[in-house]
Amino acid sequence: MVPHPFKTLSVEEVRVARDIVLSAHSSKEVVVDFREIFLNEPSKILMKRYLEAEHAAMPGRSPVTPPRLAKCQYDVIGSDKVPEYHESIVDITLKKRVKHEIIGKEHQASLTLWEFETLVESCWKSKMFKDAIAEFQLPEGFEAVVEPWPYGGLDIGAESRRYFQGLVFAQDTRNNNQDSNFYAYPLPLIPVMDAHKKEIVRIDRLATGGKGDSLTGKTHSERVLDHCQPAEYAPELLPGGTRKDMKPIDILQPEGPSFTVTDDSLIEWQKWRLRVSFNPREGAVLHDVHYDGRSVLYRLSISEMTVPYADARPPFHRKQAFDFGDGGAGNCANNLSLGCDCLGVIKYFDGVVVGSDGEPRVTPNVVCLHEQDEGIGWKHTNWRTGRAVVTRMRSLVVQFIITLANYEYVFAFKLDTAGGITLEVRATGIVSVVNIDPGKTSDYGNVVSGGVLAQNHQHIFAARIDPAIDGHENSALYEESHTMPWDKETNPNGNLYEIRKTVIQTSQGLDAAPEHNRTFKIVNPNKKNPVSGAPVGYKFMPPATQKLLATPGSLQAQRALFCNHHVWVTKYQDDELYAAGRFTLQSQLEVGGVHDMAKRNDEVTNDDIVIWNTFGLTHNPRVEDWPVMPCDVFQVHFKPADFFSANPAIDVPSRKNLSSVLVGKECCSEKL
Amino acid sequence: MVPHPFKTLSVEEVRVARDIVLSAHSSKEVVVDFREIFLNEPSKILMKRYLEAEHAAMPGRSPVTPPRLAKCQYDVIGSDKVPEYHESIVDITLKKRVKHEIIGKEHQASLTLWEFETLVESCWKSKMFKDAIAEFQLPEGFEAVVEPWPYGGLDIGAESRRYFQGLVFAQDTRNNNQDSNFYAYPLPLIPVMDAHKKEIVRIDRLATGGKGDSLTGKTHSERVLDHCQPAEYAPELLPGGTRKDMKPIDILQPEGPSFTVTDDSLIEWQKWRLRVSFNPREGAVLHDVHYDGRSVLYRLSISEMTVPYADARPPFHRKQAFDFGDGGAGNCANNLSLGCDCLGVIKYFDGVVVGSDGEPRVTPNVVCLHEQDEGIGWKHTNWRTGRAVVTRMRSLVVQFIITLANYEYVFAFKLDTAGGITLEVRATGIVSVVNIDPGKTSDYGNVVSGGVLAQNHQHIFAARIDPAIDGHENSALYEESHTMPWDKETNPNGNLYEIRKTVIQTSQGLDAAPEHNRTFKIVNPNKKNPVSGAPVGYKFMPPATQKLLATPGSLQAQRALFCNHHVWVTKYQDDELYAAGRFTLQSQLEVGGVHDMAKRNDEVTNDDIVIWNTFGLTHNPRVEDWPVMPCDVFQVHFKPADFFSANPAIDVPSRKNLSSVLVGKECCSEKL
Repeated sequence: MVPHPFKTLSVEEVRVARDIVLSAHSSKEVVVDFREIFLNEPSKILMKRYLEAEHAAMPGRSPVTPPRLAKCQYDVIGSDKVPEYHESIVDITLKKRVKHEIIGKEHQASLTLWEFETLVESCWKSKMFKDAIAEFQLPEGFEAVVEPWPYGGLDIGAESRRYFQGLVFAQDTRNNNQDSNFYAYPLPLIPVMDAHKKEIVRIDRLATGGKGDSLTGKTHSERVLDHCQPAEYAPELLPGGTRKDMKPIDILQPEGPSFTVTDDSLIEWQKWRLRVSFNPREGAVLHDVHYDGRSVLYRLSISEMTVPYADARPPFHRKQAFDFGDGGAGNCANNLSLGCDCLGVIKYFDGVVVGSDGEPRVTPNVVCLHEQDEGIGWKHTNWRTGRAVVTRMRSLVVQFIITLANYEYVFAFKLDTAGGITLEVRATGIVSVVNIDPGKTSDYGNVVSGGVLAQNHQHIFAARIDPAIDGHENSALYEESHTMPWDKETNPNGNLYEIRKTVIQTSQGLDAAPEHNRTFKIVNPNKKNPVSGAPVGYKFMPPATQKLLATPGSLQAQRALFCNHHVWVTKYQDDELYAAGRFTLQSQLEVGGVHDMAKRNDEVTNDDIVIWNTFGLTHNPRVEDWPVMPCDVFQVHFKPADFFSANPAIDVPSRKNLSSVLVGKECCSEKL
Repeated sequence: MVPHPFKTLSVEEVRVARDIVLSAHSSKEVVVDFREIFLNEPSKILMKRYLEAEHAAMPGRSPVTPPRLAKCQYDVIGSDKVPEYHESIVDITLKKRVKHEIIGKEHQASLTLWEFETLVESCWKSKMFKDAIAEFQLPEGFEAVVEPWPYGGLDIGAESRRYFQGLVFAQDTRNNNQDSNFYAYPLPLIPVMDAHKKEIVRIDRLATGGKGDSLTGKTHSERVLDHCQPAEYAPELLPGGTRKDMKPIDILQPEGPSFTVTDDSLIEWQKWRLRVSFNPREGAVLHDVHYDGRSVLYRLSISEMTVPYADARPPFHRKQAFDFGDGGAGNCANNLSLGCDCLGVIKYFDGVVVGSDGEPRVTPNVVCLHEQDEGIGWKHTNWRTGRAVVTRMRSLVVQFIITLANYEYVFAFKLDTAGGITLEVRATGIVSVVNIDPGKTSDYGNVVSGGVLAQNHQHIFAARIDPAIDGHENSALYEESHTMPWDKETNPNGNLYEIRKTVIQTSQGLDAAPEHNRTFKIVNPNKKNPVSGAPVGYKFMPPATQKLLATPGSLQAQRALFCNHHVWVTKYQDDELYAAGRFTLQSQLEVGGVHDMAKRNDEVTNDDIVIWNTFGLTHNPRVEDWPVMPCDVFQVHFKPADFFSANPAIDVPSRKNLSSVLVGKECCSEKL
C-alpha cells in the first residue's frame, strides 16, 4: 500500500534514502556522517489535487500520489577531515536523488546528539579542561559533569568554525544515584569545543560576583561549591520523601476512546479529521485538519523558539538556544509513558530517527493522543422551569514533550467539541543556573538556592498556522473595538462602540493590541456564512506577551527577528516552515525566516497565506522554580467565527456522569 | 457550639435576626418586606485577634469570638404604601439590633427575585402591555414571554423611582415543552414597571432596522416573527438529537478525596487550609487562606461585574446589568447537580435565603468542591540516564454558577499543589438578542439566527483580593522588564535587560502593561525569603483586557468607574467589599466604589491593603455563540513569588497512574 503523503517516513523508507545517499557519495576518499533523514513534504500544488480527490472519495478513482521524498542531511568528510554539509532530496519510489545541495560554510547544520556526546568526551580528553577543574577544591565525593549547549550566536568577526560550549556542574556521587541533581552545584567555567577538531580550544572563566561586582573579575575562592546545597527532585532522594495524603484520581473510559486512528496517522474524533506526523525538527505536526467535512487548516506546527539569557557578563550572551533550529524538537522528544504524561486511554505514535551511520530506528511513544474532559462546555438554566441543560467540553490532545538539557516543554494541540483549536505550551524542568558568591544577590537573576543564581531569560515561540478555511484562498484581517464620541444622531447615550475591520493587504508583521480587543480573523472571502452574511472564518486574539528584550541590533536580537511582531502574515511558499530561517545554529542574523518572507511585500488577500503567531514568557525566576519548576502554562485559542451556522457543540449530550459521587459515597455502590 | 465567625448564617440564626427586625418595626401601621439577611462579617480588628489565637491553638485557651452579626435588608411600608429601604445589623447572640440605617431615596436596594415575578404579573395585568402585544400577529401557537431585567442607569434628570424593564419574546407552545427556546423569537418592545405601584407605566418600542436605518424608526411589519427560526438546545427538542459517538470519561477517586471538610466550612487539602462561606451578593467567598500554616489571604471574592450593551438605539443604553450589585450573584446561584457541573467526588455546600416574609430556607448545593487533575505539574528527564520524573498538577476547585436571565457564569477559585491560586470565570448561556428585519445586518451586533440580532456587549469583572502574606502588613509593587541600551561597561553585548520595581505608595488605580511584562507583587516587606533575600510575596500579571468602551461621561461609564483601571490598590476598611459601591441598581454614578476608595490617597505601604483586579471580555457575538454559547474561559493566576524556599510541589508523588491504558486495552484486565 502506498503511504499517505503526510505519513512519517517508515524505517524501510529511511533505509532506501540512506542507501541512495551512500551510493551517491561512494568514493572511498569520503565518509558520510548522517544527521537526519525525514519526510520532505510534497509541494502544496500536488497536495491540493491529492487532497481534493481524497476528500471527494470518488468511487474507483484514487488520487494521484505525489512523489514520496526524503530530506537527507549529512556531512561529507574528505581526506582533509573537514566536513562539508550536504542536503539531498531522495525520491524513495524512484530510488533516485532528485536534489543535491552543498551548504556554504556561512551556515551550520543543526546539531546532533552525538555531537553533544563528543563535547563531553573532548572535555575529559582535554588537559586544559582537567586543569581548570583541578583549580577548584570540590567537596569530597563530588565529580564534575559537563552539560553540552549550542554555542549561541557567533561573535561578529569571529572565524566561522563549528563550536559547542559546556556548562559545568558537580554531582554528589555519595548518593550513589546518577539522578542526583548536579545543577545545584554550578562550576564557573565554560569549555568551548571546535567540533571539527573535536578538541577543547578554550575555557571561558565565569564571574561569580553580585551587584556592584565587575562583569569579568574573579571573586570566588577555589572552594566554590561550599555554599551550595542539595536540591533533589528524584523521589528517593527527597529528605522527607513524598507526601502521603494525595489520593488517586483515575480517569477511566470503560467504553474506550471516542477517537479512531487509521494507518497510524489519520485521526477521526467528534467530526474532526486530521493527520499527524512527526519530524526531527518540529516534533508533531497536524495536517489537513477538517471539521465535519470542511477544511480548516492545511498544516499546524510549532515552528521555532528562542531562549535568550540576560546576564550581561560575557560569555553569557552566548546562552541563546533556538531549540527547534539548533537541536530539533523532534530529536529531543521524550519517550512518553503510560499513566505519567497523560491519563485515560492513550494512543502513542512512534518516530523514526537515524544514527550517524544513517541506520534508522524507531523511537517509541514520541507523540501521545488522548481525550480530556475540559469542564463545563455550555450551560443554560431556564429559571422559570428550573431546568438546567449542561454539557461538558471535551478535547482531543496531540501532545509531545521535549527535554533540552535542563529544561522541558510540553507542547499540545487541543481540538475541542466547540470547533476550537488550542495551542498549549507548558514550560517546566530545571532553570539554567550559574554560581554566585555567598551572600550576594544579582541584577541578572534570582538566588534560588545557596550559591545558585537562576539567570533572567525569555522563551519566545513561533507557531506556524497554514490555514485552509473552506479552501486555500484565504484572507487575514483584524477587528478592533473602539469607543465612539458622543453624537446626537448616532450615539445619543454614549453606549455605542464601533467594530473596525482592517484587511491585511500585503505580507507583514503586526502586533497584539488588547487595549483595542484586536482580534485576528482568517476568512475565506469567497464564502459567506448563511446566517450572518459574514465571510466564514476562524479567529484568535494574539496574547500581548512581551517581545524580545535584547538591545536592538544585538546578536541575540538579530538572530531572532521573528520576535519583532506577535503576528506575521505571509504568502505561502513550499519549504518555508521555519520562523527563524533554515539555519539557526551559530547564526548572526535571521536569514530566510519570517522577517524575510514578510519583506517580500506579497499580496496576501484571497490567496494561499500563512499566519505566524509569536508569543513568549519573560522568565525572571522565583525561588519556587527550584529545583524543578512548576509548569508555566501558555495557551492561544483559535475559534470558529461565523464558520458554522450555530454552536457546533449544541448536540453534545447533556447526560449525567454516573460515576461521580458525593463525598463519603466514593467506595459505596450507592451512586446517584 | 459557637459557630466560626466566618461561617454562613444558619437558618436558626437568620430566624433570630428576622424576629429582632420584626420586633423593632412592630407598629401595626407598617409592613416589613425582607430582601436579604446574611452574615455581617466581623471587623478585621477583632478577626485578627481571633485568627491569631485560632492558629496558635493554645491548649485550653480558646479565641475570643467576635459578635455574631446579621445584616438585614428590608423595606418598611407604611400606610402611604411607599416603601422605605432599611438596613439593620442584628447581634444574634445578644438578640439585639446594634445598627439601624434608613437608606436615602437617591439609592435603590438590590432587586429580589420576587420583584421580577411582580414585573411579569404586572405585564399581564396591564392593558397597555396586552394591547402592545396584540399589535403583532404572532405565529399560530406562539405566546409572549416576559424576561425581567434591571432598569439600567436612571436617565439624568429623571425622577428617582424604582423601575424594572422586561425584554419580550414569544414561545412556541406547540412543542408542549416549557424549555422551548423563546429567545429565538424576540418582540420589539420593552415594558417598564414602576415597582412601588406595581404597574406598567410605559412601553418602549424597539427599532428593528439594520445598517443605515434610523435609531428610532419603525421598520417592521406586525408579522415580526415570521423570519425567525427555532433554535432549541434542550436535547429532546434538537431536530437531529444528540451525537451518539461520545463515549464516557469517568473520573473515579477510589480512595476518596484528598480533602476534608469540617464544620461545613473549614477545608483542608494538600497543606492548604481555608474557610468557605456563601452570601447572597458575592456567592462563594474564601476566608483565611493558609498554606502549610502560613497566611496567604484574608479574603478572596468576586466583587462585581457589569455588562453594558453597545446598541446605540434607545432604550438599549439601559441594558447594563451589575450582576452582583443589582441582583446578587448568590441569589442567582444554581443548585448544582452531581455528575453534571463537575466530575469525581463532590462536596456541596448549601446556602440560606429568605423570602419576603424573612423566613429562611436552605438552598441546596450552591457551591461545590472537588479535586481536579490539571495535567503535568512538573517534569524533568535526565537525558544521561533516561530517567523521567513527572508529577501531576492537581487543584482544589471551589465553584459556583449563576444564571442571570439568559446568561450564566461559572466562577471558580482553584488552589493548586504548586501554591498557586487561579480565579476562573466561564461565560456561557444565551446571548442577549433583539429582533432585526429580514435580510438586514447591523453595526450593533451580529445576526446569529433568522431575525435575531445578538448585540455587542462587554463583561467586566472585579475580583477583590484581601491579602495577608505572612501577616496583615503588606505592600504592593509592580515589576517590569526593560530593554537596556548598549553600554561598554554594563551591557557590552546587548543581551542585558533590567527589572524595574515600583512600590505603590498611595491608594490608586493602575493598568496592565504586558509590553513591559508588568507583574504585580503583594509582599510582606517585614519578612525576607531565606534563600533569595527578597521579601516574601505572591505575584500576578493582570491580563490586559479591554476596558469599558462606553463614551467617557456616559451613564454606562459613570456607573462603572471601577472599570477605569485593571488593578486598584486600596487601604483596607471594614465593609468595603463592593467595587462599584454598595448601591448599583439604577445608579447614575459609582458611589463608594473602588474609585472613591482609591481617591482617599491613603498610604498603602506595609499596611493592611486590598488589591482589586478588573478584567473583562469584549463580546462581539459569533454565530457559534447561538443558541447557547460555548464557554469563554478567563483566568487570572496568583503565584507564590519567593514566598516558599523551593517549589512547594516538589514532594508531590510521581507514581504512575495504574488506571491509564493503551488504546484497545480499555476493557481488558491487562493494565500497564
